Amino acid sequence: MSLLDAEPRVVTTGVSLFAESLAAQDVDTVAVDWRPPADDPDGTLATALARVAADPRRAAADETAVGRMLAAGAQLIDVRPAREALGLEQGTFLHAGPPITWERASGPLRGALQGALVLEGLADDPDDAERRLAAGGVALDSCHHHRTVGPMAGVVSPSMWMLELADPVGGGRAWCSLNEGLGKVLRYGAYGPEVIDRLRWMGAVLGPLLQHAVRTLRDGAGPVDVKAIIAQMLQMGDEGHNRNRAGTLMLLRELLAPMIDAPGHATGAAAGLGQSDVARAVQFVAGNDHFFLNLVMPACKLMTDAARDVPGSTVVVAMARNGTDFGIQVSGTGSRWFTGPANTPEGLYLGDYGPQDANPDIGDSAITETAGIGGFAMAAAPAIVRFVGGDVSFALATTRRMYEITRAENPAFAIPVLEFRGAATGIDVTAVVRTGILPQINTGMAGRVAGVGQVGAGLVTPPAEVFPAAVRALAELAPPPEGPPGPV
Amino acid sequence: MSLLDAEPRVVTTGVSLFAESLAAQDVDTVAVDWRPPADDPDGTLATALARVAADPRRAAADETAVGRMLAAGAQLIDVRPAREALGLEQGTFLHAGPPITWERASGPLRGALQGALVLEGLADDPDDAERRLAAGGVALDSCHHHRTVGPMAGVVSPSMWMLELADPVGGGRAWCSLNEGLGKVLRYGAYGPEVIDRLRWMGAVLGPLLQHAVRTLRDGAGPVDVKAIIAQMLQMGDEGHNRNRAGTLMLLRELLAPMIDAPGHATGAAAGLGQSDVARAVQFVAGNDHFFLNLVMPACKLMTDAARDVPGSTVVVAMARNGTDFGIQVSGTGSRWFTGPANTPEGLYLGDYGPQDANPDIGDSAITETAGIGGFAMAAAPAIVRFVGGDVSFALATTRRMYEITRAENPAFAIPVLEFRGAATGIDVTAVVRTGILPQINTGMAGRVAGVGQVGAGLVTPPAEVFPAAVRALAELAPPPEGPPGPV
Repeated sequence: MSLLDAEPRVVTTGVSLFAESLAAQDVDTVAVDWRPPADDPDGTLATALARVAADPRRAAADETAVGRMLAAGAQLIDVRPAREALGLEQGTFLHAGPPITWERASGPLRGALQGALVLEGLADDPDDAERRLAAGGVALDSCHHHRTVGPMAGVVSPSMWMLELADPVGGGRAWCSLNEGLGKVLRYGAYGPEVIDRLRWMGAVLGPLLQHAVRTLRDGAGPVDVKAIIAQMLQMGDEGHNRNRAGTLMLLRELLAPMIDAPGHATGAAAGLGQSDVARAVQFVAGNDHFFLNLVMPACKLMTDAARDVPGSTVVVAMARNGTDFGIQVSGTGSRWFTGPANTPEGLYLGDYGPQDANPDIGDSAITETAGIGGFAMAAAPAIVRFVGGDVSFALATTRRMYEITRAENPAFAIPVLEFRGAATGIDVTAVVRTGILPQINTGMAGRVAGVGQVGAGLVTPPAEVFPAAVRALAELAPPPEGPPGPV
Repeated sequence: MSLLDAEPRVVTTGVSLFAESLAAQDVDTVAVDWRPPADDPDGTLATALARVAADPRRAAADETAVGRMLAAGAQLIDVRPAREALGLEQGTFLHAGPPITWERASGPLRGALQGALVLEGLADDPDDAERRLAAGGVALDSCHHHRTVGPMAGVVSPSMWMLELADPVGGGRAWCSLNEGLGKVLRYGAYGPEVIDRLRWMGAVLGPLLQHAVRTLRDGAGPVDVKAIIAQMLQMGDEGHNRNRAGTLMLLRELLAPMIDAPGHATGAAAGLGQSDVARAVQFVAGNDHFFLNLVMPACKLMTDAARDVPGSTVVVAMARNGTDFGIQVSGTGSRWFTGPANTPEGLYLGDYGPQDANPDIGDSAITETAGIGGFAMAAAPAIVRFVGGDVSFALATTRRMYEITRAENPAFAIPVLEFRGAATGIDVTAVVRTGILPQINTGMAGRVAGVGQVGAGLVTPPAEVFPAAVRALAELAPPPEGPPGPV
């Protein structure tokens, strides 16, 4: 039978225009989900990919990196100010994402820095702070350079109280500040008096009470097992990035009894706090569904830090954004950042805000996706689509797609609706380049203008170019290919 | 083309033997999911079904019944002893399921009654209690006859503290006792000293503290909205019968601040309780993932009671088991029970227990399925299969199947993984008989022997015969069919 005797059978791929116009003519088509690989006009990327694929260290290196990532634990062992925990000196401010200067900083990062200067007493008001920052009077550094992760702007200053997590397997430490809640908060770039007042209360009451509770457990029944709570929250509709509701309640459950016990028993910073302070602190935590995000993030930081610095490994160990640049770090390339311009999330907006109000992607919270949860585990949290957009079938398809670009499945983070399949973990930069599938991140959206705060939540991907850059760097570090074997 | 010229195409239905033997011969078959309707040798059931279907009141009656069921609210308005709340007199004991005598009572119900007599000081020990019960010295009645629901044995005695829920829409009230936790507990038929001690502490400390908290909220910020928490828990991996983990934590979140406030402020029964009592009470609630079940059940009782007594309605308003009999009540047939022998659940067993240790189905908790959650909403709680057996695809298929025997979908109880489809609500006895699909219940399993306690959790259905019995009763109450219209 010749081709022209029968009805044509059409297979389509790439952009949907061809398929759509055939569908309009009532022709059946079969769509193949294939994307063109990254831009490679001179063929050097293909050469780099081949070089990395041929690296004899690679299989073992990735196995080591991912093995360490999966094995890492996360226990909450202390709560104390950044000046103590990180040795952070007055006049130094940490921020989310790869390093950046004030000149290139986005609105929300600028706003958060202005607020932090006021909080530290280094400026009289936000305008004064802006002048001092523009004059270069303070030191800025990336949270990630201090084993710290910060959501959104991620600004950390010496007086802020930090959650301190330890990995009992690999021995690592990681830190994150206390979550302020939603809306007008410093991490979204707001800096009004209510923001500063809340941060002062967190330093005077909430931090000390949490310190008492966390130390009581650590020195008694045992520290809070954050990894175990993350495992549970994935059974309870949370994905650990934009849904942390069950996680927050489970954390609160652990901390309740020693918090209630504090009045009359606590020493140190919490001495003298009373029953009404406890009630307010408990209500603050209980009323903030995102409180546990600031424990998920350092838990994921412990996992990904454990996978760092394995020569030859192609596994991503950090994805982070400062509101201007999106950066990744890869196990086999050490502390080098591969950066590109941050994309702007698309999703759902609060109140009257719209796409024009949203800042490009910001925050260290993509550490959750780097560790296999957040956007990668949306199938565990179908209700997330009411917050970040999309529908439930998108959430399920996204989680399934992420297995194509990762090296492992995490049995500790099981996704019930996928018959308890482990979360897709350990992004492989070569798989991203080969498949054209980008890691899926879900995220809060900050207002573009300093002082505004949160405007929505949505979905975003890294800029595609960071992955080929990492592949090229890995290729340069790979041992030279062996020539053909000579005569014996 | 004649039938014999081509390969046979085989459609199979009913038992799978035929399909399996064809499959063994490599013949493709298409299986149709059809079950024979209920046993009807003399055709009278078909006549009854036709009579009910022709009842001109029926469509409006079901709409009214289901409309009331969906509209009912549930607020937690008080916590107080059964003697006050229900006017229960010393010597009277309520139990789960349809009415039953001591002689026909199963092991777990007997054990719970023995413990309750000891708790009330009406017997010196469980043996003494058994003699007194056998001698007929106490009055037994069904919880359902007192707007009360009790999990498992469901025994309520005058000194037990009750959760009191109100429906602000229909004005109903419903009660349930406080959940004791899992393992060796009265409701599973255990009656040892630790069971009685725990119940005494619940009466002296937990009940009064909850009363203080519930009344503080009721008279201040507003009562706890139990229906809203149920809606949320379905987004958080709970189905409200055997998973109540998120629900319990959300309830605790509401009650925390006024519980913490109690020392020095509470009056009445909670006066004089201190900080350590609060810490123990909070830990007791937080450490018992099933605590919220005892609020879900009366909330469902409010929903189903609102749908009672609509003449012509075929909607089930109660499913309840006493460990011997399984009974249903139907809106159009008033307070009449249709009963059959309770089936024994199949599922997963604790420790060394096995099927031989399990008592037949027991408890009023099937009120959750009657109201559209529990086994009907397992798709919202895929992790439940690790507790009751089955796999995730079974959980999803079960929820989908329940839409075939129900009259409505509850928009307030949305199931995220089904793209937020409302829970299948309002079991129609005629649909059960026509399709042969029985309501799916998941449940705890009590030990057969009094005193043992819980032995597992599993899946069970009502005995099929209760539904034809209800259809026949509805047919008897239907108006006589009209003859053909006469000449004008």
